[in-house]
Amino acid sequence: MSARAGIVITGTEVLSGIISDRNGPWLSERLTEIGVDLAHITIVGDRPEDMAAALRFLAGEGVDLIVTSGGLGPTADDLTADVVAQFSGRPLTLDAGLEARIAEILRPLLARWPDVDRASVARGNRKQALVPEGATVLEPVGTAPGLVVPPREREGPTVVVLPGPPSELRPMWEAARATDAFRAATRGATTYERRIMRLFGMPESEIAATLVAGEQAGLPLDRLEITTCLRRGEIEVATRFEPDAAPAYDTFAAFVRERHGDLLFSPDGTTIDEQVATLLLGPPGRTVATAESCTGGLLAGRLTERAGSSAYVLGGLVVYSNEAKTALAGVDAELIKRVGAVSPEVAEALADGALARLGADVGIGVTGIAGPGGGTPEKPVGLVYVSVATRDGARVTRKLNLPGSRSDVRERTTTVALHMLRRLLRGEDVPTTR
Amino acid sequence: MSARAGIVITGTEVLSGIISDRNGPWLSERLTEIGVDLAHITIVGDRPEDMAAALRFLAGEGVDLIVTSGGLGPTADDLTADVVAQFSGRPLTLDAGLEARIAEILRPLLARWPDVDRASVARGNRKQALVPEGATVLEPVGTAPGLVVPPREREGPTVVVLPGPPSELRPMWEAARATDAFRAATRGATTYERRIMRLFGMPESEIAATLVAGEQAGLPLDRLEITTCLRRGEIEVATRFEPDAAPAYDTFAAFVRERHGDLLFSPDGTTIDEQVATLLLGPPGRTVATAESCTGGLLAGRLTERAGSSAYVLGGLVVYSNEAKTALAGVDAELIKRVGAVSPEVAEALADGALARLGADVGIGVTGIAGPGGGTPEKPVGLVYVSVATRDGARVTRKLNLPGSRSDVRERTTTVALHMLRRLLRGEDVPTTR
Repeated sequence: MSARAGIVITGTEVLSGIISDRNGPWLSERLTEIGVDLAHITIVGDRPEDMAAALRFLAGEGVDLIVTSGGLGPTADDLTADVVAQFSGRPLTLDAGLEARIAEILRPLLARWPDVDRASVARGNRKQALVPEGATVLEPVGTAPGLVVPPREREGPTVVVLPGPPSELRPMWEAARATDAFRAATRGATTYERRIMRLFGMPESEIAATLVAGEQAGLPLDRLEITTCLRRGEIEVATRFEPDAAPAYDTFAAFVRERHGDLLFSPDGTTIDEQVATLLLGPPGRTVATAESCTGGLLAGRLTERAGSSAYVLGGLVVYSNEAKTALAGVDAELIKRVGAVSPEVAEALADGALARLGADVGIGVTGIAGPGGGTPEKPVGLVYVSVATRDGARVTRKLNLPGSRSDVRERTTTVALHMLRRLLRGEDVPTTR
Repeated sequence: MSARAGIVITGTEVLSGIISDRNGPWLSERLTEIGVDLAHITIVGDRPEDMAAALRFLAGEGVDLIVTSGGLGPTADDLTADVVAQFSGRPLTLDAGLEARIAEILRPLLARWPDVDRASVARGNRKQALVPEGATVLEPVGTAPGLVVPPREREGPTVVVLPGPPSELRPMWEAARATDAFRAATRGATTYERRIMRLFGMPESEIAATLVAGEQAGLPLDRLEITTCLRRGEIEVATRFEPDAAPAYDTFAAFVRERHGDLLFSPDGTTIDEQVATLLLGPPGRTVATAESCTGGLLAGRLTERAGSSAYVLGGLVVYSNEAKTALAGVDAELIKRVGAVSPEVAEALADGALARLGADVGIGVTGIAGPGGGTPEKPVGLVYVSVATRDGARVTRKLNLPGSRSDVRERTTTVALHMLRRLLRGEDVPTTR
């Protein structure tokens, strides 16, 4: 027995690609955590008939739970409550208490915008307080309440209706889970274990070959649901299994480690960002600084993405122009003239400059051609040099030839730089390539 | 008459939220461009029965065209060609010429990885050359070919099968459009006009009020399909209409301009990033430099996102630690001690430091508390100061109180900084707030 679910993301601006959906993936992870099997995510525009069709499709596929996001705002194109009410056969009624609570939430917001049209706000407020009969209201985090709508006559799926902004949807999830209707719908959920391994420095076909070899070697892979994908230049192996298949997973993980050795940089699913943060925090604690040309600040931006990164990131230099390379990072102007700004020598001088100028323990220098213009036969788009140097004289410099767009090249470079930094911090031997 | 379409995104790693889908939004924009009405985007895992259900659902909704992405790789969980062949009633047959062409593509890739398992590669190669009878092959951009599969007996939708990696899917789109089957399926497409306006500095409810007011004023809004959304802190008003409704759009646009004045910073849909780039390119050409604390390089990263940005971005300083603020940007250590690192004075000193150290025409300084920790009652999380200063003495400094997560605060700050930069470059008067 198991519980199945579907997700319906609403919004013409999502369907038309103007904004990208962040709720589907997040809800998907939450459902997986509680052992609910997600069958479909459907994205529809603000057309009631298309939304109704998506709900009927999921009901026809036999799902026990539908989660919707979006369409709960105050404006006329926000239709979700209405469509779900009809789908569930539960007419909308005004919840006067809820109307008052929303008005209370709006009061301080309105104070910030004194010229706002009050009648329009009151109309929206009342609209947001219309609730399908018998539904449970999830209190607003922003101004829109969520809903948990059980099926009429105990047939068909329970519908959890959540607002579109991720900052409102996410805090409401636990309240939705706590409702009786949600619990009843997900009664059959199986709890799965989930493990992730990450590898870096090989093509995806290699992991496919490993799976084939594992089967041939008689590994109990049929107890494991394994998916592999390429993500930010790394291979991610995600496995889901029922708790009693843990020994099968351990056998599989050992097989991957044996075949791929050091390329398996994360047997426990930690990301390269987490690993670098842990290594820098120490002991011994070490500080890092950057000097970036083609990545233009993205490496520093990625290193400071994590809360608490001020403990180990001192700062960085974005040296886009040659003059800035010389003035800020102290790269010899003659050197640039002689070997060119995109060269291993300049990457090393940048790493040294970051070290010296910021007084860091580790410096990272990046220079390259992100494209789409600026490439030559000798130095094509995608040619990047990364150098990582420590205060005590360790150093590694690598030449990369990265495929893809300008933003692919820039992002992939930050991933490679983090991997080089990790290996140097671990004291591993890394071959320099020029 | 019109043509309708659906999109099916496949892949357990997309459904489970491990990677985010970039193909749905992109395909959606392409379909809109050619006047095809998109009804649904459906995301399914690598389970053939779920994918088949999604195809049947869309066919049942009467779409003329289905575009799929993903599931064309060499591994066993790549099932799309098989499922689509069954859906269209066209058995898979081996295309020996295609098999040879794929082998040719693989040859140089294999040279880079000499230890790869050859039998596994050959198996994948053959699998990728299986084609539904009567389908048109779209030549591989990576290693996976695409397909255009017409319906059997001229009933039901044509299915365009594209690979998952955006860098392979995108270049194949034009080839797909050029096929007879695609043209036949989209014969009824209406070409719509599409316009975007962007506003900054007001809540979303204000644009809803404007739409209500427009209706009350008798504007011909029924000829326009208007959607509004909040994106990166800006309000985007996207409108679609049939060509003969252009005068109705012009009336609407004039109404928005009249009501919102300067807050309508983009009547033509250009982004703030594009506007800033155009202003910096000139004439007169001007250069910019940054000194960032809480955004940690993201502002420089955003300014250098555009190809050709080296013409106006000199570089920047990432001054995460107080020592770096002093050593790199020349901020007086006594000043930091007296007023704190998060203060209008330090934001201004950072802007001045960026100007001076990089010899730029315009300098931007950013300091703030991105959170989640580090806030105090006086200086809470989300408090950010941004200062923009020009070489000839113009300056504006603003105090921001930004809601949301660490990454929300960091990203929103870059948007505000770009808007301040734009106004200063245009010589507009911007009030300083402290």
